[in-house]
Amino acid sequence: MAKKILGVMGPGTNPTQNDLKNAYDLGHLSATMGFVTLTGGSKAGVMNEALKGAKDGGGDTIGILAFADKTLASDYADIVIVTAMGSARNNINILSCDIIVACGMEAGTLSEVALALKAKKKVILLNDNVKAKEFLEAIGKGEILVAQDFSHARKLIEQLVNNDQD
Amino acid sequence: MAKKILGVMGPGTNPTQNDLKNAYDLGHLSATMGFVTLTGGSKAGVMNEALKGAKDGGGDTIGILAFADKTLASDYADIVIVTAMGSARNNINILSCDIIVACGMEAGTLSEVALALKAKKKVILLNDNVKAKEFLEAIGKGEILVAQDFSHARKLIEQLVNNDQD
Amino acid sequence: MAKKILGVMGPGTNPTQNDLKNAYDLGHLSATMGFVTLTGGSKAGVMNEALKGAKDGGGDTIGILAFADKTLASDYADIVIVTAMGSARNNINILSCDIIVACGMEAGTLSEVALALKAKKKVILLNDNVKAKEFLEAIGKGEILVAQDFSHARKLIEQLVNNDQD
Amino acid sequence: MAKKILGVMGPGTNPTQNDLKNAYDLGHLSATMGFVTLTGGSKAGVMNEALKGAKDGGGDTIGILAFADKTLASDYADIVIVTAMGSARNNINILSCDIIVACGMEAGTLSEVALALKAKKKVILLNDNVKAKEFLEAIGKGEILVAQDFSHARKLIEQLVNNDQD
Repeated sequence: MAKKILGVMGPGTNPTQNDLKNAYDLGHLSATMGFVTLTGGSKAGVMNEALKGAKDGGGDTIGILAFADKTLASDYADIVIVTAMGSARNNINILSCDIIVACGMEAGTLSEVALALKAKKKVILLNDNVKAKEFLEAIGKGEILVAQDFSHARKLIEQLVNNDQD
Repeated sequence: MAKKILGVMGPGTNPTQNDLKNAYDLGHLSATMGFVTLTGGSKAGVMNEALKGAKDGGGDTIGILAFADKTLASDYADIVIVTAMGSARNNINILSCDIIVACGMEAGTLSEVALALKAKKKVILLNDNVKAKEFLEAIGKGEILVAQDFSHARKLIEQLVNNDQD
Repeated sequence: MAKKILGVMGPGTNPTQNDLKNAYDLGHLSATMGFVTLTGGSKAGVMNEALKGAKDGGGDTIGILAFADKTLASDYADIVIVTAMGSARNNINILSCDIIVACGMEAGTLSEVALALKAKKKVILLNDNVKAKEFLEAIGKGEILVAQDFSHARKLIEQLVNNDQD
Repeated sequence: MAKKILGVMGPGTNPTQNDLKNAYDLGHLSATMGFVTLTGGSKAGVMNEALKGAKDGGGDTIGILAFADKTLASDYADIVIVTAMGSARNNINILSCDIIVACGMEAGTLSEVALALKAKKKVILLNDNVKAKEFLEAIGKGEILVAQDFSHARKLIEQLVNNDQD
């Protein structure tokens, strides 16, 4: 049986300090809840912190690389999948996850939120960008769950897990 | 020498009447300006109208299909490229265009705008969604050009062409 | 209506002189038969020669790039599609063509022949590699058409066109 | 640190009995040698047997799906990666593995062998197809290691592991 995967999508470059802390906490939470944690696998930013949190929480981790060089993957990725297909790999990140959290916001993360909506998958939004939340909630038509902070994100994850088990 | 390509990204399903009219006009303009017109190639919505406008304007057209069945492509696509890779093909749409116009707004279109920003490519936004414009302009940091209407979009396209020739 | 596409698959590096001559002749034939000619779009080897032949024959041409930099495409590609997804783009080459000729033989070309067989598409094999022909004919189960030389390849293309029209 | 991945590539449909037995044994061996075992993730043929062998050997397993429906993955895949990109996913299989064994031979498997050669990665060939071995050994220029039987394949895997550690 396939293990459940929780994906943390977020900026590799220029994350906020808050994004990084949230990413670590999300990875840790994911591990303690029994999820495998998945990110884009880079050695930087939200991708790296989420995997680090998951490893510290005793969980398994996956990095889905956009590029070809496996040695550039995060040290916290147990499983490194090499796509070498640039941002087209963002769709694989989304399709592979059971629970998706967008932690922080930049162009790549936004593409992942949009690809999730296109695939009719729910996304938990955790960031400080008020306009992002307003716009995505409107376009998301019920698929976007806006988290006020990490503690709220945790509650939303637990709700999704419970709904899934009903 | 490669011909210049103008891409019109927009909803296949549930476009507004305004989106459809703009799509047709953009395709027609693209043709008369000498561009090859590219869309996602579906037989519906903005994708279909933009290609129809381009054919009526005497231009060449390309459809980059997300799916595998070439017979489902728009009748107005001269060249049909079959990717069979779902929404991951959105990145190919973006990378292949010299000028990108997002005409209308839904999840797939949003992913294309985001993938363009990720690739550091400019996007002209033409739609009636005020929140979309505000948010994307903010996240786009100069790469997002907001058009008030079709006539404004034409001016923005002409500016990009002129900048490119400088 | 979509134009018919003839694809010439073959080595970018280390083609034989015979491969290059055949590639040019195939591109030229494709153009005079009214096909759009498609290759992997590189500025080298079979890919470049086939596009050159097609342009000299007055035809339209497409290059589907494996890499991201459009300026590295063949000068003979009218339409340059940028995938930036490495060898995964080989599947797009195959799925997009109505007629496929493998001209020459190396690893990338072999992957294209195999992907065509997987997609249940016919492939005309034109090369000097006797073992390749024997093996691929056996694995291809009627989908592989072995051409003895260019003139034979032309007859096979004409047969496929006629079958298609029946 | 990324775990080492051993990939078993082979037919989902119409494998020989020998292919299936070899696939199971390869998965089991992979697990006992400490590898994570990767296949294309289908519920059938070599893909399924290799993952079953790996689970019986106490190992971790990954399935990289060509299609979109995660519920159709092999029950023996711990981690299911959803690409929904058809045969273009074959390149991801190849790029992600540290050791590659082609077990059996049909069009999809052949594409994977070819994509591995294109990426300059070694492939161990284990099948009963004499012509396949001769042809691929010739085109592979030292990257193709032909195994006479499972016991020989095991020795070749051990050699690759030892070379890697030097």
